[in-house]
Amino acid sequence: MDQLVQNGQFAAPVFALLALAFAAWKAVAVRGKEAGDQEMQTIAKRIQEGAMAFLKTEYTWLAGFVVVVGILLGVANAIGGLENNQTPIIAVSFVLGAFLSGLAGFFGMRIATLANVRTTHAAKKGLGPALEVAFSGGAVMGFVVVGLALLGLGSLYIVYTTMGSTLFPGVGEAQQLQLALTALTGFSMGASSIALFARVGGGIYTKAADVGADLVGKVEAGLPEDDPRNPAVIADNVGDNVGDVAGMGADLFESYVGAIIGAMVLGLAFGVADHGPIVLPLIIAAAGIVCSIVGTFFVKVKEGGNPQHALDMGAFGAAGVMAVLTFVIAKQLWPEAGATVGDLHVSATDVGIATVIGLAVGVAVGLITSYYCSMDKPPVDGVAEQSKTGTATNIIAGIGLGMQSTAVPIVLIAVGVVGASYFAGLYGVAIAALGMLSTTGIQLAVDAYGPVADNAGGIAEMSHQEPIVRERTDKLDAVGNTTAAIGKGFAIASAAMTALALFAAFMQQAGISGINISKPTVMAGLFLGGMLPYLFSSMAMKAVGEAAMEMIEEVRRQFREIEGLLEGKAKPDAAKCVAISTNAAIKRMVVPGALAIVTPVVIGFGMGAEALGGLLAGVTVSGVVLAIFMSNAGGAWDNAKKSFEGGGYTMKDGSLHEKGSEAHKAAVVGDTVGDPFKDTAGPSLNILVKLMSVVALVIAPLIAVAS
Amino acid sequence: MDQLVQNGQFAAPVFALLALAFAAWKAVAVRGKEAGDQEMQTIAKRIQEGAMAFLKTEYTWLAGFVVVVGILLGVANAIGGLENNQTPIIAVSFVLGAFLSGLAGFFGMRIATLANVRTTHAAKKGLGPALEVAFSGGAVMGFVVVGLALLGLGSLYIVYTTMGSTLFPGVGEAQQLQLALTALTGFSMGASSIALFARVGGGIYTKAADVGADLVGKVEAGLPEDDPRNPAVIADNVGDNVGDVAGMGADLFESYVGAIIGAMVLGLAFGVADHGPIVLPLIIAAAGIVCSIVGTFFVKVKEGGNPQHALDMGAFGAAGVMAVLTFVIAKQLWPEAGATVGDLHVSATDVGIATVIGLAVGVAVGLITSYYCSMDKPPVDGVAEQSKTGTATNIIAGIGLGMQSTAVPIVLIAVGVVGASYFAGLYGVAIAALGMLSTTGIQLAVDAYGPVADNAGGIAEMSHQEPIVRERTDKLDAVGNTTAAIGKGFAIASAAMTALALFAAFMQQAGISGINISKPTVMAGLFLGGMLPYLFSSMAMKAVGEAAMEMIEEVRRQFREIEGLLEGKAKPDAAKCVAISTNAAIKRMVVPGALAIVTPVVIGFGMGAEALGGLLAGVTVSGVVLAIFMSNAGGAWDNAKKSFEGGGYTMKDGSLHEKGSEAHKAAVVGDTVGDPFKDTAGPSLNILVKLMSVVALVIAPLIAVAS
Repeated sequence: MDQLVQNGQFAAPVFALLALAFAAWKAVAVRGKEAGDQEMQTIAKRIQEGAMAFLKTEYTWLAGFVVVVGILLGVANAIGGLENNQTPIIAVSFVLGAFLSGLAGFFGMRIATLANVRTTHAAKKGLGPALEVAFSGGAVMGFVVVGLALLGLGSLYIVYTTMGSTLFPGVGEAQQLQLALTALTGFSMGASSIALFARVGGGIYTKAADVGADLVGKVEAGLPEDDPRNPAVIADNVGDNVGDVAGMGADLFESYVGAIIGAMVLGLAFGVADHGPIVLPLIIAAAGIVCSIVGTFFVKVKEGGNPQHALDMGAFGAAGVMAVLTFVIAKQLWPEAGATVGDLHVSATDVGIATVIGLAVGVAVGLITSYYCSMDKPPVDGVAEQSKTGTATNIIAGIGLGMQSTAVPIVLIAVGVVGASYFAGLYGVAIAALGMLSTTGIQLAVDAYGPVADNAGGIAEMSHQEPIVRERTDKLDAVGNTTAAIGKGFAIASAAMTALALFAAFMQQAGISGINISKPTVMAGLFLGGMLPYLFSSMAMKAVGEAAMEMIEEVRRQFREIEGLLEGKAKPDAAKCVAISTNAAIKRMVVPGALAIVTPVVIGFGMGAEALGGLLAGVTVSGVVLAIFMSNAGGAWDNAKKSFEGGGYTMKDGSLHEKGSEAHKAAVVGDTVGDPFKDTAGPSLNILVKLMSVVALVIAPLIAVAS
Repeated sequence: MDQLVQNGQFAAPVFALLALAFAAWKAVAVRGKEAGDQEMQTIAKRIQEGAMAFLKTEYTWLAGFVVVVGILLGVANAIGGLENNQTPIIAVSFVLGAFLSGLAGFFGMRIATLANVRTTHAAKKGLGPALEVAFSGGAVMGFVVVGLALLGLGSLYIVYTTMGSTLFPGVGEAQQLQLALTALTGFSMGASSIALFARVGGGIYTKAADVGADLVGKVEAGLPEDDPRNPAVIADNVGDNVGDVAGMGADLFESYVGAIIGAMVLGLAFGVADHGPIVLPLIIAAAGIVCSIVGTFFVKVKEGGNPQHALDMGAFGAAGVMAVLTFVIAKQLWPEAGATVGDLHVSATDVGIATVIGLAVGVAVGLITSYYCSMDKPPVDGVAEQSKTGTATNIIAGIGLGMQSTAVPIVLIAVGVVGASYFAGLYGVAIAALGMLSTTGIQLAVDAYGPVADNAGGIAEMSHQEPIVRERTDKLDAVGNTTAAIGKGFAIASAAMTALALFAAFMQQAGISGINISKPTVMAGLFLGGMLPYLFSSMAMKAVGEAAMEMIEEVRRQFREIEGLLEGKAKPDAAKCVAISTNAAIKRMVVPGALAIVTPVVIGFGMGAEALGGLLAGVTVSGVVLAIFMSNAGGAWDNAKKSFEGGGYTMKDGSLHEKGSEAHKAAVVGDTVGDPFKDTAGPSLNILVKLMSVVALVIAPLIAVAS
């Protein structure tokens, strides 16, 4: 093994620790800011308590789940034995993956719920200081995620490979490496399990609370947004953190880990003489951390400036530096004479190009998403215009837009797949996915900034701050909506690429050379896979509907039974609403979650590895397209509605979007339909496609033996 | 060749002529009925003129399209030459397929638009006579479709094979047969081209007229349904014929032809020593005609009886007889020692079982569709209940239901594919598709009966008949809605199976042994294919929206400018509305149509046969699931709305669905959203998946040479 490669693998845990140190520094900075007056602090405390209450309930359930699945995994793999490429150590990776993802969610939420009120307070001073606090809060989530993910993965890899002969006794060196990587796949499955619960549960939570707060509080009782008399407002603000901070964090944690592991496993195909292709993904991830940290320093705004511009500078700057760095790293680590897989000879430059293709596709899909979901752009304008002829035309326009918006991103992904694999085979696809995700640190920081800013606005409203404060937080929040749209597009694109990477790794681990669609079982798998995202989405949407009904009844009950509540003389029982959302979310994520985990197992063992491959292909294609559709339709409906708010809005073409008009009401209905689209079902599909692939990858050696 | 097989092939044209004779007999019977009073006849005449005007415009355009594509096909295939399995004669088949499908649409519409007013008149006498006329009208469409399809196919096959040495000089006997079947595939593409224009154009037509009639006439001007003062009412009634008679007819014509040709081409794989496997599909189709004719005699109802029961008797009876007959035919025609393809030995019984599997899956999918779309069943009840909390919950419920409803049909199709191919390989899948479609004659009769009954009700209303007449036609119409739902499910299932049959035939013709998803170009094809149905649907829905806007403006203009119109003193300019719908439909079907035809050509020649296979797999899976979703969501919204109509409706659980309530209004919005789902985009997807497969099949030999 090359000395550089040998030393290089230590870069992963080292730079992971750097990311954690940076996150800690940011966390201390956030903590050190003033938290404002007593009223602000009380409200913030209730949001924080609600968020922690959700995490506590979620993690209690998850702990049980992780232990049970961990034991099953360990036992199933122990039975087969090392000579069949199975290792019970996979259970250790699984538990650690789940634990670290959970831990990242905990830290991220903890700081995000401290940052919100401090952002409100900072907004009293100006836009710049407010952005600084909000972005620092988001950055903690971003860097804790990449730090813990890479620390766990990097350390496990070093331990598994250096202790190879102890952990995997009686097999040759080459197989030890193979077993080490097999064991590592459990880490990805652990991360995916947390992501499933965080995304699906979080999605149900946030929308149940949102609908409850809006429908009863705003519509029935006529209270303004974020009014402290509304019992569901705290749950609503908790929901922003649960869904958009912890949910998004776990989602990208999973993608990040999946892309790295997928690439590492596929690196095996180049032969084990040189570990370069296997270690390279860890180093790229490490370099991505440095680029992300550098990027954060560009996020600055002056009073009157545009926070969007500052965030773009940070994210695109990091991506740009990363693109260059990639070639340098590949040059150093890749075997000098190139490496060969099948008929394909891959050079260092080829690997660099594949990485950059991934980066470029990720950025492009994000930008297209933002085009389809931004105010003052033709798509959203069109939906707003169609609201003027009523609710039905608003809905049809939104659905049509969402469907149309799938075209370019899918073409880009397809081009990315063909391009990356042209240069570096299936390894290239995985490395492209990683390229896309290498700057996850800052991407997620930008994403998680949104809900912090949103919360800050809520706290400003509830604590009756001066209008200028709310104005500033609104400015931050508006940018947050755009970054959220971009982030969602990015999350879907990265989920698609990661799923493909895991899918390719699955084929290799299952020992099948191809998946032939002309085989009837593969056709059947493809059909079943194509259907699952629909079934999964319908379950998620139904869960939101049911949970929202419970919330609606509780809010109505409080208005009815708590005397003086509407007059502001009594406090609502916010904790009860938080508890309802929490329990509803936890209870209702079980069936869709089980569907995602059990289906690949049943198909894999019942119909064989190739049929399972068909299932994965079906679920990935159908899931990604459906996710783009739902996410963009939801985003467009949201902003079409916003074009009627804020005291009426004059469009570029001079037409007036009047607040309170019939068109506005139609747009509100569209937004309500869009909410579970973009915040529950859509993002959950990211998890579905990755989780099913990673489950397949983990059970691949077992299937290979069984068949 | 076996003597029985030799003679057997003549069964196809003979029984096809029987079907046409039966259709003629039914047509004469319909013509012979009284057409009622002068007012009824005037209205009926305007509907008929509108329908014929649409056909005339459509066919003028189509003629140009068919000539151009026919020449292209001929020239492209002439260049290659016979030694490369290419024959310019394919152009003859193409033109004939298009011509016969168009002719079927013409006859079917012609009689349907005679039957409607005669049904109204017969309803004065009673329910039984009215059902008889309406069903006879539908039967003409049904039997003209199967008759012309089988006559064309059967005759071409005989001509191409008996004149083999003249048509395909200089090649051996085995290759002559292959070339004959290659030439035959053009017939399927011709049929598909007409289907595309009939379904997409018809779908746009019918919904533009419907929205115009409803939104301005009913909502803005407050006129009741089918009021003669409403300028768009005639166009609306024309639309029922254009969409549900001609559109559905062309759709099933295409499926029927595609399934037969797919099976025949795959029959080649058993070796050409015995023509049994190649001729069998023609004989099964011929037998299906007999069963269908027998079935029609069971369609009788007494006054106070249930027309649904009568129609079920006919359709299920025919299917039951067919299931038995299948085994008898297979026993006679299949090589006594069985036949072998690859490792699989297939006996006559195996073929029989595969056919019955197809029949069973078709019936089952139809029934499930009906469950999800029928009033008084939990799914529709649920949507109606959710209307009580507003429009948004109605929409979310409908979308959730539609998504959920994809699960069982897809599982059934997957089981059908695995089951049929277990017994008879890919040939089994094609023969299962044919089994499903063997009784198309009566299936389509039942389907086309619906719009005739619907029209009859409209004419009763417009010509101010006594309430009892409208009551009876309403009873027929209500049943028509259920049969329409079943028919749509059946059409989708058969489209899925036909697409798979064509897909398998494509692989054989392109000379590829498999389609490996792990190849990046196949992955890319799969993604692009998965996206196309969304893009196609968005185009179709956008076309409806734009065409509807034109119609709305025209109707408003007439109310404004024609003096005395609303008072009933002046006649509306119905012809203008018909012209608007016609032109809008024709103009707007060009781009989606081109997309469906050009994409496989571009991908096939640009990226190769395997990538094209991936594209087809993606479009089939994604298209079928999306079609089921859209179709069922639309059907459920429709009936949820209906549960609020007819003077209020008490549900089984005792809850009242009050007419004119807020919940009713919410349900109306849902229905408006559902209309383009179930009548435009959803059914058009059936065509998309089949057309793309058949284009691939037709160009397969060209790609095989090019690569």
